[in-house]
Order: sequence, then C-alpha cells, then structure tokens
Amino acid sequence: MKGKRVTIIGLGLMGGSLGLALKQRGLAAHVVGCGREALLTRAMEMGAIDSGAVDAGEAAAESDFVFLCTPVETSIGLLREIAPRLKAGALVTDVGSTKEAFAAAAREIFGEAAHELVLPGHPLAGKEVSGLEYAEAELYSECLWVLTPLGSAEVASHGELREALARLGARVMEMDAAEHDRTLAYTSHLPQMLSTALALTLKEAMGEGNPGLRVHAGGLRAMLRLAESDAAMWEQIADSNRENLAGALEGMERVLRELRERLGTAEFRGKFEEGREFAKGLRK
Amino acid sequence: MKGKRVTIIGLGLMGGSLGLALKQRGLAAHVVGCGREALLTRAMEMGAIDSGAVDAGEAAAESDFVFLCTPVETSIGLLREIAPRLKAGALVTDVGSTKEAFAAAAREIFGEAAHELVLPGHPLAGKEVSGLEYAEAELYSECLWVLTPLGSAEVASHGELREALARLGARVMEMDAAEHDRTLAYTSHLPQMLSTALALTLKEAMGEGNPGLRVHAGGLRAMLRLAESDAAMWEQIADSNRENLAGALEGMERVLRELRERLGTAEFRGKFEEGREFAKGLRK
Repeated sequence: MKGKRVTIIGLGLMGGSLGLALKQRGLAAHVVGCGREALLTRAMEMGAIDSGAVDAGEAAAESDFVFLCTPVETSIGLLREIAPRLKAGALVTDVGSTKEAFAAAAREIFGEAAHELVLPGHPLAGKEVSGLEYAEAELYSECLWVLTPLGSAEVASHGELREALARLGARVMEMDAAEHDRTLAYTSHLPQMLSTALALTLKEAMGEGNPGLRVHAGGLRAMLRLAESDAAMWEQIADSNRENLAGALEGMERVLRELRERLGTAEFRGKFEEGREFAKGLRK
Repeated sequence: MKGKRVTIIGLGLMGGSLGLALKQRGLAAHVVGCGREALLTRAMEMGAIDSGAVDAGEAAAESDFVFLCTPVETSIGLLREIAPRLKAGALVTDVGSTKEAFAAAAREIFGEAAHELVLPGHPLAGKEVSGLEYAEAELYSECLWVLTPLGSAEVASHGELREALARLGARVMEMDAAEHDRTLAYTSHLPQMLSTALALTLKEAMGEGNPGLRVHAGGLRAMLRLAESDAAMWEQIADSNRENLAGALEGMERVLRELRERLGTAEFRGKFEEGREFAKGLRK
C-alpha cells in the first residue's frame, strides 16, 4: 500500500485511528478522508488524513484502496454508491462487525468480479467509546483483523492489504463469512446484549438514582461496561446478524433458567464449576 | 480495637487480608487466627496473625472481637460453635455476602442479647481469586463495608468496630439486612450468575478448544471475569439468597426475551439506548 492513494470513508473511532496509523507509519502516499465537513477539518488537524471530500464517490474515485469505516448497513449503501466511481484495480474493504450481509451485497453489486474488487474485513478493536476524538494510531496494534474473502483466487491487491494491516500491528486471519457471523454472535454480540439487558433489569427493579446501586464490588461495573457502547452501531449489527443472535440469546435464556431452577440444589455447584473451568480455560 | 485481642476465623483472602491490615496498622494488641494447621503456619509467616488455633471455640475464647471470615453458611455454623465460649462483652462480626440468614441465626442463638453481641457485616471487596496467598493489607482500603445491625441501641463495642474499619480505609455504611440481600441480588449476585451463564452458553454452543473462541475484542473477557469466582462461596451465597436471586434471574430472562423479540424492530434501538443511559448514569 506504500506509495498508493487510500480513501477512508467514515471518520469515527475506526476510520480516524486507521488514518492516524497509516500516516504515522508512512503506509500510504496520500490519505483521502470522507465525512461531514466538520469531521474533515478535525481529521486534517489531527493528521489523520491529507485531504477530504464530503461526497463518497468523489472521495473514492482516484484511490487504490478504499476502507469503509461505517456501521454495516451504512457500508452496504456506500459500497453501492461508490461502485461506479472506482478506478480499475481498486480494492474496497470494510471494518463491519458482521460479514454475511456485506458479502451478499458485494456479490450483487459486482457479480463475478466481487472477489477481486472487495475483500471484507473486521478488525476486533472494540472500545465502548466512539467518535473521532477517541481515535488513536495504536488502536489496531496487536488486534485480530479478520478477513472474509469472497473467493479463493490470489489477487495482488489483497496481498498488499494484508501486508499493510500487518504493518499496523494487526494479526490477520481468514475466516468464512457465515462462520464469522455465527461465532461473533456468541463471542461479541451476546456479551453486548447481556450487558445491555443487565442495565435494563437493574433499572426496572431498582430505578434510577437508587442509592443501593452504589452497593457493589467492582464486578457490576465490569459487567455494565459494554452497555455504554454506541446504539447506532449495535442496531445495525443486531439487524444484520439477527438469526444467529436470536439463537445465542435463546441459548442464554435457557441456561439462565436452568441455573435458576437449580438454585439450592447440588447441581447448582456442578454447573457453577463447569462455567468456572471453561472461563479459566479461555484465558490460557 | 487498639490494645484489644482479635480473632479471625477463616484465613482465606478476606481473613488473611484483614489480619495483615490490622497488624500493619497496629489496630489490635494480638491477632489470633483460626484455620487448618498449614494455613496457620503460612499466616504467621506472612505476618497476618500473632498466634493460631485449629479449634474455633479455643481461638475465640479470650478475644474482644471475633471476625468470621468464611462463606455464609459456614459462618452460621461457626457462630453456633463459638457462642458458649465467648467472653463477656465480646463482639462477633462476619464478612458474609448475604445478611438475613446470618441475622436470623444470631437471633436464634443469642435471643435478646443478639444485637449487642453480633454486628453482621459485609465488606464489598470482591476479587475473582481466593485464598490466603492473594491476601493483601490494602484489600479494604476505599472499600464499602456494610453493617446490618440487629437492633438500634448504642453499644460501645460497635463504635470500636466501626472506628477500626474506618482506620482500615473502609467506607462504613449501615443498611437493613433484608434490603441488603434484595439489593445485592441485583448488584452482585445477578452479575455473577450472568457471567457464569455466559461461560456455560459458550461452552454449549461452541465447545471447548474451539478456535473461534479467540475471535473477540476485549469485551468477552470482561464479561467472563466473574465466572472465575470461587464455587464454594457462591453456592452458599445463592443458597442463602435464593428467593431474591430467583426474582432477579426471572427479571433478567424476561428482559433478554424482550430484547430478542425486538431484534430488527425500531423498539430495539430504544431499549438499547435506555440501557446505555442507565449504565452511563451509574458511573457518575
């Protein structure tokens, strides 16, 4: 990607951090940003982009690599919008939290050329905060960056993208899009829903401003951290992974019911220990 | 408590840390530990106790203050055991995570004198680790230490206990035992069960050793931290707060089902934002 022109559409936490990382490591000749006027100004000040455009098609037109750094459904709309403007040989990637819907859209828009032109991605670099002001060049350092190729043929631009991501410090891995979405429903989307549901349950049972809400050790705070995540992003994740997430939630509801029904029985201890061993095993 | 003889029964994380804190701050003339032989030896080496006894009655017999630092139901058994051996004017307290069952036992054992002789307590100083090896003198510094008095009459030894806890750095507050248990069912026991249930759900859906379990951002780890807690302690907490906890779990199951049924609808976003505002409000 060195010496190439790169466009970043969407200058939030993900896009802003990507711009900072590419610029500070000299991994692109020129970085074009795309977002609202105020964001472009701020991203220029921060040194995250070299130039900017409000229009996505215009921002993407001359670039070799285009990163869609917006929520899933927004990225699908943008892919459709920039498709006719892309220059020959350009590669589009994204950072969306689900991959099947984006892959389907890419196939619909580009047909057989989709595999060559689009390499969907998902950097697992979550934060509960969002927005350009929280962007940092090291966001992707040590992070797992999943790519879900639309086909298996070797493409030069794909190799360039992989190399650039590795230079950002990311650990790049490939996965099937459907497997990605099913997996993330459990490892990411379910934990998020639990945190949100815990907040709603506490509100319902205790109400806001209840002094009892201060009576806890540190555990409650850790369990409510994810609940502070961005609603717009999560609405789109939940929509685009609805079936998998519904299955994960049903499984969770069943396990909670089983734990509840076992309260006061010898089986409760066994279940608790089973969960404990599994959680400890994950840390290894 | 200065110049007084103090007994700590149970030399795990809580009891060991208490011994270290009392000794390092010079808050007691002599600290007697009670536990298995090997624990007594280790606690002496660490400087957490001055002397030790394996028998609880013997350990408690000469002391002015007795701390029961064992899980709830174990502490109830110990209270019964040491009752006939306590010296006149001695005060017993505990560090159990639920308070109603312990209060009921104290009333049953001591009758009208219970309020004077027993002042139940609960320091909210959780850790996922347990055992003497993790004990530290600063465990109770800045921690909330709830006391649930059995009556309202002023007792001199109660004042001494409160002062000593404040000198350990704890923020002492009083609460009704029933209110404590109902509150903690939501702020502590429910979060614990969620973490355990999440581990069980992941195990059920993905199995152990699934490489997909490594595909997540930091959120999953935070949500599974509590699941590593001690099973023996949690079995006793769950048993002694069964009705409140069952109610909290039912509420949680209902909220999860509502979130699931709202996936893909406009109401989902509203629910998510409601949880987000509540979680953010708790941090203030």
